[in-house]
Amino acid sequence: MSRFWSPIVKDLVPYVPGEQPKLSKLTKLNTNENPYGPSPKVLEAIKSESNDALRLYPDPNSDVLKNTIANYHNVNVEQVFVGNGSDEVLAHIFHGLFQHGKPLLFPDITYSFYPVYCSLYQIPFEAIPLDESFQVRIEEYRGINGGIIFPNPNAPTGSFLALAEIERLLAVNNETVVVIDEAYVDFGGETAISLVDRYPNLLVTQTLSKSRSLAGLRVGYAVGHPDLIEALERIKNSFNSYPLDRLAQAGAVASFEDQEYFEQTCHSVIAEREEMVQRLGAMDFQVLPSKANFVFCRHRSREALALAEGLREDGVIVRHFDKPRINQYLRITVGRPEDNEVLFASLQRLLAVD
Amino acid sequence: MSRFWSPIVKDLVPYVPGEQPKLSKLTKLNTNENPYGPSPKVLEAIKSESNDALRLYPDPNSDVLKNTIANYHNVNVEQVFVGNGSDEVLAHIFHGLFQHGKPLLFPDITYSFYPVYCSLYQIPFEAIPLDESFQVRIEEYRGINGGIIFPNPNAPTGSFLALAEIERLLAVNNETVVVIDEAYVDFGGETAISLVDRYPNLLVTQTLSKSRSLAGLRVGYAVGHPDLIEALERIKNSFNSYPLDRLAQAGAVASFEDQEYFEQTCHSVIAEREEMVQRLGAMDFQVLPSKANFVFCRHRSREALALAEGLREDGVIVRHFDKPRINQYLRITVGRPEDNEVLFASLQRLLAVD
Repeated sequence: MSRFWSPIVKDLVPYVPGEQPKLSKLTKLNTNENPYGPSPKVLEAIKSESNDALRLYPDPNSDVLKNTIANYHNVNVEQVFVGNGSDEVLAHIFHGLFQHGKPLLFPDITYSFYPVYCSLYQIPFEAIPLDESFQVRIEEYRGINGGIIFPNPNAPTGSFLALAEIERLLAVNNETVVVIDEAYVDFGGETAISLVDRYPNLLVTQTLSKSRSLAGLRVGYAVGHPDLIEALERIKNSFNSYPLDRLAQAGAVASFEDQEYFEQTCHSVIAEREEMVQRLGAMDFQVLPSKANFVFCRHRSREALALAEGLREDGVIVRHFDKPRINQYLRITVGRPEDNEVLFASLQRLLAVD
Repeated sequence: MSRFWSPIVKDLVPYVPGEQPKLSKLTKLNTNENPYGPSPKVLEAIKSESNDALRLYPDPNSDVLKNTIANYHNVNVEQVFVGNGSDEVLAHIFHGLFQHGKPLLFPDITYSFYPVYCSLYQIPFEAIPLDESFQVRIEEYRGINGGIIFPNPNAPTGSFLALAEIERLLAVNNETVVVIDEAYVDFGGETAISLVDRYPNLLVTQTLSKSRSLAGLRVGYAVGHPDLIEALERIKNSFNSYPLDRLAQAGAVASFEDQEYFEQTCHSVIAEREEMVQRLGAMDFQVLPSKANFVFCRHRSREALALAEGLREDGVIVRHFDKPRINQYLRITVGRPEDNEVLFASLQRLLAVD
């Protein structure tokens, strides 16, 4: 450690994202990207924004994009916050809404960036165990807390919690903010945004990285009561006035304007996921029910790590977490049918070897 | 204030960026953007990156861009940090290198985001007065401190401090980090990056927003000792793994690859600035010597605010700061010759009125 560092830097254990290999020949099923590219209208919008006006700062408030999102979700523009990917939105949420000196509650098996944010912003936390079948037990999220957050569908499990369960939580927890992180909701879940008008402590985050095929563009957002949004705006405007560049704003708006493409690609991913669940089951995998664009599964007799390494030898990258409770599982992103053929051919080969 | 807010949110007074008017007919000389668009090669690079690969996350480490910057400045890649605009880079610097419970030192007249970062990260600060002619008095930056930061050239004055003065500071201040914010250095200043190998506590920030005409793309960077860079990487990787989208990385790389265009546009801005200084002087303005892409000036008999309002009526927007010591000054961005004609025609009209 350098003497020049702020004291908190020493103990930070940064988040490690899934590998972004530089070879393009790989079948990349490790970071839950959409197997389909963005809408051609998005690419067109970006190209037409790539002009002399890039010399000018972007709209610091992303008004057009916020209005687009507000219309899409049928809320007011004051209920919408946008950021440079939902990771930035989450960071501002931890900073602006969770620093109360009381433990933040989230599942023990969940998005592994949450404890990292806690470390960055010095927020105590308590990891609440999922039940035996990896489901969130909503009745355990009560008592003294500085906030509650979980993804729905959860990651890396893919399990979706019904909105009635979330309402059950909101009914008893009204003194702290409850964040539902809906990165994967468009693949068969149901958004809790319908509840924000009734619960002033509910904040819902979404991203354009998964269902809208724009992981490379970095756009995420939050929807909730204007008071919660104001906290995020204050943090954002004390951090970086212009988090979304001109191209990201233009591309994101265009994405919401092509509903047909969005629905079509989501449907294709869902259909392919169901096919994968079937085939993995037939190969003696135990597969958790998934409402996401990935499946979480374990083989009944093979070591997960050995399978992941075997797949990699065949050029297929999946995600294995070397963590308690889930180290025998693989998280596999749903690919195009042709990607999945490569996956299953490799699995077949690996499982055939004694 | 909402009970849901983290306590720090209540007292945040966010930075207010210069207005980004939505009308394009205005002569916009208020936010120090480059009057020339980015290199055509940058626009080409962005367009060719606007493809199906946007479904994939960008390189979280921006390796190609970091290598490009390292080559350009003749340093090692471990000495380079990149962020989503230099404002984000500065935020991480305040968080990761200035939180020592001792006052950060910066000029009383300077980039007004610095005290905002201090508020966000709870860093005490001391604003050291510029001298009567608005110059940094380097001998006043000593004694107990948690770090030192100033822009060079300074903003909004445009004054450049010779590197020998910075070395004089580094010779006596070696226990805390000294940050030189070089947003405007390419318009006639000299970069302190040449000093980073000799001073492990020197960190230099630059941006692509001004001299590279890419305010709309959001790319900034810092160059310094690998230990300082590591602190920033730890913060960044605990905040947002992917701060630079694919288009920003591609566009930024292309900008460094078109040195000719860069030099040409910088020279044009410098030539036009000198012309403006002459003409303003002839109109009875007192103009500070500037090494930036703006001039800071006061009229010897007219109120600054009235002039700013009069210019606005003619569709010319300049920056007026309602702050002690400088409320009789205007900061005027250097435009293209035709923008400056509009500016001077309006000034002539205003000054002719009794």
